[in-house]
Amino acid sequence: MTTILKGAPVVQAINKQLSSDVTELKASGIFPTLAIVRVGERADDLSYEQNSTKRLESLGIQVKKYPLPIDISEKSLICVIKEINHDSTIHGALLFKPLPKHIDETIVCNMLNPDKDVDGITNISMAGVFSNTAIGYPPCTPSACMEILDYYGIDPAGKNAVVIGRSLVVGKPVAMMLIKKNATVTICHTKTKNPAKLSAAADILIVAAGHAKMIGKSYFNPEQIIIDVGININEEGKLCGDVDFEEANKIAAAVTPVPGGVGTVTTSVLAKHVVAAAKKYDSNPPHKKSSDNI
Amino acid sequence: MTTILKGAPVVQAINKQLSSDVTELKASGIFPTLAIVRVGERADDLSYEQNSTKRLESLGIQVKKYPLPIDISEKSLICVIKEINHDSTIHGALLFKPLPKHIDETIVCNMLNPDKDVDGITNISMAGVFSNTAIGYPPCTPSACMEILDYYGIDPAGKNAVVIGRSLVVGKPVAMMLIKKNATVTICHTKTKNPAKLSAAADILIVAAGHAKMIGKSYFNPEQIIIDVGININEEGKLCGDVDFEEANKIAAAVTPVPGGVGTVTTSVLAKHVVAAAKKYDSNPPHKKSSDNI
Repeated sequence: MTTILKGAPVVQAINKQLSSDVTELKASGIFPTLAIVRVGERADDLSYEQNSTKRLESLGIQVKKYPLPIDISEKSLICVIKEINHDSTIHGALLFKPLPKHIDETIVCNMLNPDKDVDGITNISMAGVFSNTAIGYPPCTPSACMEILDYYGIDPAGKNAVVIGRSLVVGKPVAMMLIKKNATVTICHTKTKNPAKLSAAADILIVAAGHAKMIGKSYFNPEQIIIDVGININEEGKLCGDVDFEEANKIAAAVTPVPGGVGTVTTSVLAKHVVAAAKKYDSNPPHKKSSDNI
Repeated sequence: MTTILKGAPVVQAINKQLSSDVTELKASGIFPTLAIVRVGERADDLSYEQNSTKRLESLGIQVKKYPLPIDISEKSLICVIKEINHDSTIHGALLFKPLPKHIDETIVCNMLNPDKDVDGITNISMAGVFSNTAIGYPPCTPSACMEILDYYGIDPAGKNAVVIGRSLVVGKPVAMMLIKKNATVTICHTKTKNPAKLSAAADILIVAAGHAKMIGKSYFNPEQIIIDVGININEEGKLCGDVDFEEANKIAAAVTPVPGGVGTVTTSVLAKHVVAAAKKYDSNPPHKKSSDNI
């Protein structure tokens, strides 16, 4: 019997803690606030902005929006980021990517104060994930994978984990997080010769392949925990993951659904990071910026 | 017949290129210079300082030494790092670690301008290794492993590589470098349950376990390339690696010796980074510091 690792109870548990944290912060005069910077009007971004705003506001977190024209200059975008850095009422910032081609994404991302980098887009946040130190914030999606494992009592220690995908937003950071939790980690990607064989031997399989239903029964085993990070639209126009859910649901010990799995938890992780940033702000005078030490 | 992957010819090849680069730099008025910052008088540090100074100077690279007392204050050490940052005649800096306990190593390391961080001790260098972008420099030891593979024509693409060790100076960075080269990488460590079985299946085995002769015949296979990063002193007072060399020499396709393997190449990589930093300096006006963009 395969367990479906639904995101909803994970979200509920995180939100319960967050609501209490937000109440405490507000009592001490801190109103946790996220800035959302959106360049252009991509449908995906608009939809994520709308959903996450609703979710964050329901937790008492304020959202300040910066909708910017698609032809904004790099210089003007940097001014917006600097404004956010200096605005003491903003604790975290989300910047939708990719940015338009005329803008150097690396330069813009690294203008953000790492203390406000709640989705791990700066070099400092990356170094934090890589070196396992509390600087910046990890990206929300790999953190959501770890929250799910944690909520369902799955301890990665001593387990063999296979991560499919080597991106900076999921594959590499989730691998580092699993290593931190003492898993033995194998990172597979498009150039891997035997991904199914390697995956079939895994106790934990994290899939961020980026292709609908790409990962089928030859990748699974009956003791396996599968976390599906993929979000795709199938032929019928419906959301589906990178994992063939029907097959996984027959073979594996547990699997996250899509929708209703990792994606659901991601916004709660974002909220968690904003609250953490607000807490740090509370205990750290605004004139003392960690970036001074970089 | 096991091939011994000696460091000497790798060093020779790197040095040949470097000598020509140094000559060119000098012709344009740039004298590549490394600062060595040593706090206290640890025997290992003194020996490394002496050997690397000799090697670098033989390549025409200048070495400027900063021998500091063991009880130097954090503030004074930071002043030295700042002096190095601002000294336009210094292109790279090496700081021996660990620092004495009264000094916050993370703060001090991150004071160094990443453009001069030729041994990858800053957060920016770590982000560079993690994200596979040309910011800062990777640590010299994992780069030496990759130089050896490269020199001997061993392409990691599509191969299964096992890295034993998850440190920030070897295990994690070499894993990132192997992924960049399209290897499928498994990272093993002290909590790994079946390291011998996993290693025995590897095409490339990188060992940074930190224990003399810990890795024996159950880890090897006849097609395997073994890179031994370990440097230990055995019962007879002689240098030895983490790999049981005699056994590897009977079973594997190729293995690096200790001494005469990775360690030998490390100083050449350090020289290479200093020359690269000097070249960048040459094409980048000194007032434009990359750290402005962080």
